[in-house]
Amino acid sequence: MSDKKISTAVIKRLPRYYRYLGELLENDIVRISSNELSQRMGVTASQIRQDLNNFGGFGQQGYGYNVNHLYKEIAKILGLENHYSVIIIGSGNLGQALANYTDFEKRGFVVKGLFDVNPRLVGISVRGMDVQDMDQLKDFVVENNIDIAILTVPKTKAPAIANDLCEWGIRGIWNFAPVDLQISNFDVVVENVHLSESLMTLSYRIKDSY
Amino acid sequence: MSDKKISTAVIKRLPRYYRYLGELLENDIVRISSNELSQRMGVTASQIRQDLNNFGGFGQQGYGYNVNHLYKEIAKILGLENHYSVIIIGSGNLGQALANYTDFEKRGFVVKGLFDVNPRLVGISVRGMDVQDMDQLKDFVVENNIDIAILTVPKTKAPAIANDLCEWGIRGIWNFAPVDLQISNFDVVVENVHLSESLMTLSYRIKDSY
Repeated sequence: MSDKKISTAVIKRLPRYYRYLGELLENDIVRISSNELSQRMGVTASQIRQDLNNFGGFGQQGYGYNVNHLYKEIAKILGLENHYSVIIIGSGNLGQALANYTDFEKRGFVVKGLFDVNPRLVGISVRGMDVQDMDQLKDFVVENNIDIAILTVPKTKAPAIANDLCEWGIRGIWNFAPVDLQISNFDVVVENVHLSESLMTLSYRIKDSY
Repeated sequence: MSDKKISTAVIKRLPRYYRYLGELLENDIVRISSNELSQRMGVTASQIRQDLNNFGGFGQQGYGYNVNHLYKEIAKILGLENHYSVIIIGSGNLGQALANYTDFEKRGFVVKGLFDVNPRLVGISVRGMDVQDMDQLKDFVVENNIDIAILTVPKTKAPAIANDLCEWGIRGIWNFAPVDLQISNFDVVVENVHLSESLMTLSYRIKDSY
């Protein structure tokens, strides 16, 4: 396939294609036309053709797309063929829920450790790992070449922890704290999940539907 | 204020304004200029002025915005002055984490009940509520006029539960199951939180930063 740059708009849609193609694979569907995929995804067929044309000649007139091939190609673009070492900082219910998402591990995100400041949580076992005290965080990150930190800590604690993680060589932060992290290190990528904002959008749409 | 329709693009940015204004209030800041707000939020001052002009004459030359007034006005637009009765279906770690988010209750989303099929979870107490068996779901939804259901169930279970909820008069579904729910009832609003897709976006950006 070509090395041309894929637009941000397409990139943002890729995880959704990836999810749908994964479901087709689970159902042993080996090929699909853009019209069929269009119906399933609720996107126009022409949008699908345009988007997937970025990945070279997988779609063929009268054949459609080879599901497995396209799935793997999108995985490559998304960097999912890599394996990422992940830690979870904040091991309450949300941290534990994320540790137990087996889907993440299937996609290459392997949780190597969990951390918390709360003595009631330190030492408990989550998915076969003992929750560690925050004192041990620095050594663990450095010794295990941790790539990604998942932050499920209060918003008042998140900025300082994020700064430390950047110094210790982390590459990405998946932030669930309700604060926009200002990271001065441009090599570190932050992806925020602001759950409250999603709930407010739901509220707006409920109100607006009346 | 006027009754003119506010554009979707502005609506999508409102929860973020709301969050920042809430932080200003917490810090006892009563007014702020668009320039100051711009620096904090990393958005241009002209974008902020344009967006907030939708809410009438709150910004005054040489004074800036009255934080409390603007905060309340945005809350109204988002429907946050309403109180919503919420249930959580799926009371594992994620469901419990969401039940314990006190921020949601502050914004009017009051959790009234939790449900699960798992006998190990039915009967346990989460935030003073006993997790109920799914058998009791229908009566509970109807008798308590539940507005919003939070779904943290497997993707194979989510569509059937969502359809039942629509029949029983629910108004909104906050869906954490990794599936796009097809709801035929247009009065019911669905907001999806696809955590895997956010993680894939992080993966792409880490890969792209090299």
